[in-house]
Amino acid sequence: MEFDLIERIRARVPQRDDVILGIGDDAAVLQVPEGKHLVVATDTLNAGVHFPLGTAPADIGWKALAVNLSDLAAMGAQPAWCTLSLSLPMADVQWLDEFLDGFLGLAARHGVALIGGDTTRGPLSIGVTVHGLVDPGRVLRRDAAQVGDEVWVSGTLGDAAAALALLPPPSAGGPGGLARQGAGGAGAAQPLQPRSIEQEREGCLQALLPRLDRPLPRVDTGRALVGLAHAAIDLSDGLLADLAHVCRASAVAAELRLEALPASPALRAAFEPSQRYPLQTAGGDDYELCFTAPLAARGAIERVSRDTGVALTRIGMIVAGDGVRVLDRQGDHWQPSRDGYMHFAG
Amino acid sequence: MEFDLIERIRARVPQRDDVILGIGDDAAVLQVPEGKHLVVATDTLNAGVHFPLGTAPADIGWKALAVNLSDLAAMGAQPAWCTLSLSLPMADVQWLDEFLDGFLGLAARHGVALIGGDTTRGPLSIGVTVHGLVDPGRVLRRDAAQVGDEVWVSGTLGDAAAALALLPPPSAGGPGGLARQGAGGAGAAQPLQPRSIEQEREGCLQALLPRLDRPLPRVDTGRALVGLAHAAIDLSDGLLADLAHVCRASAVAAELRLEALPASPALRAAFEPSQRYPLQTAGGDDYELCFTAPLAARGAIERVSRDTGVALTRIGMIVAGDGVRVLDRQGDHWQPSRDGYMHFAG
Repeated sequence: MEFDLIERIRARVPQRDDVILGIGDDAAVLQVPEGKHLVVATDTLNAGVHFPLGTAPADIGWKALAVNLSDLAAMGAQPAWCTLSLSLPMADVQWLDEFLDGFLGLAARHGVALIGGDTTRGPLSIGVTVHGLVDPGRVLRRDAAQVGDEVWVSGTLGDAAAALALLPPPSAGGPGGLARQGAGGAGAAQPLQPRSIEQEREGCLQALLPRLDRPLPRVDTGRALVGLAHAAIDLSDGLLADLAHVCRASAVAAELRLEALPASPALRAAFEPSQRYPLQTAGGDDYELCFTAPLAARGAIERVSRDTGVALTRIGMIVAGDGVRVLDRQGDHWQPSRDGYMHFAG
Repeated sequence: MEFDLIERIRARVPQRDDVILGIGDDAAVLQVPEGKHLVVATDTLNAGVHFPLGTAPADIGWKALAVNLSDLAAMGAQPAWCTLSLSLPMADVQWLDEFLDGFLGLAARHGVALIGGDTTRGPLSIGVTVHGLVDPGRVLRRDAAQVGDEVWVSGTLGDAAAALALLPPPSAGGPGGLARQGAGGAGAAQPLQPRSIEQEREGCLQALLPRLDRPLPRVDTGRALVGLAHAAIDLSDGLLADLAHVCRASAVAAELRLEALPASPALRAAFEPSQRYPLQTAGGDDYELCFTAPLAARGAIERVSRDTGVALTRIGMIVAGDGVRVLDRQGDHWQPSRDGYMHFAG
């Protein structure tokens, strides 16, 4: 099984000049440009834990690489190479081809070469290691936030967690459940009659699903923030949990304004504020960047937003102390029912 | 769960000077020495597929790194850094500590720094990516075997597959089955009375088990063979299957002499030739090096064997054609019942 699948993968992989030896030997051989530092991140996705069981193979492939590129984005690194470890219950060639459509499609967008990996028999699991390049010292770290910095996030928050909340459980399905059209499908057609609440929710789900299935790693934005941002992290476990890592590493605290958290139109349409705030603060799978920067960088950061086409929103401040506090419009402390780790398998 | 485990891992990891940023950020930052090429290999072990379910956590940790270092050895690379992706059914601190005993114990032997990774919830699975360094052009590849080369292997063949064959199935156990003492345990004490066949087999199993649980990656040997060997591969799926990859990549054939295959005393004691030849040719998990070299290198290779303390044995020749043939003492073609992929889960 293993070798046929590997041949199938190798046949589809474009190469880079700096790949001396790619897929097919015991290891790959790579040429790191002189004067660059190597940046390495690794993340594994397990079926039913990191993506719902009904997820399309192409979306799984996309997401497996996206969550890793998101780590490179949070470092301000330029992606270069990746490896893929694929555990499959059986050698399913059609599944693999569709998986590669998503994986290699995203790799091509960022010029990333797949240089090796392995396929094993086991429960569906995808392990990816990505390699990127930075100039020495020009890297965004978690431990560099400073008191007086503003806290920013890219894009919008809570969309992936909202899609997950709207998805029917895998066992339900049937005509009554909300249909899963896949990230590539067209949105639901506009009905002529007034839409029912079910129809409204269905429309919102189709708008939100791509944020769950096909996250867009903010690679260009992360690179452009090098030299502007002090600290950065990518949001995988939820804003509060991830920003807490930055605060702990930097020995500072953060104070966020609840009403400043960016929300997509679909999220606003599907959820009341009391429902959506927990999704925005504690929902996982955003794969947006959260970073801190001095006030003096505000103009330059707004230019980065325009240049890269990614909204960048100020959501609070870094202050002395520890922990992350959220203030509502009245200035009162606000707390989600629970923070972090809202992965759907509980 | 994830963060506590990562902190626990980080606390135990020694650093290298070339690790600019290690565990604890979105990615690691590494300094590749100028003029060196980077070598990257990745291999995943799944419970019940790549190790028996009863394997001790420390042995799993050792083996997960060993099979990856074996890939670097087959390239002639000097190991430097690794990442670890750990899927665990639950956060089991004692299991993790024992796992790290094995993993970090082997890492320390080879000066490898653990620079990052992730822990996820899921069926037990261990994904490792290793990074090594080579001088440009000074790498052992699969596609460089030449007609007239001699074929060599390191160590002995078939021991791991033999241990697996002697192990009782996980469900059996009890006083009747052969006990699993673990690789670190002392061998069975010498009995005063004549040993039964069961006792003989038990003694052999205890001698063979370390080859299954704690393979020794031939890193020093691989490095010393750079400039001497033409082509090399590490043996994970069995001699015939792996050497076939070399032959295919090099567009040559190989002719092996069955009686030349190196066998350990324990293997010889436990198995008749007709039983042991299939284990030596088609059993997996050897993690020895198989390489080809010109006759002129014979003396230098024998010096490598003495210098690194690893037996190196000539087992055949590279000839024109394709495929791998095995000849018995009479010069007749010999075939195992099936070749390759004798992984125990079937």
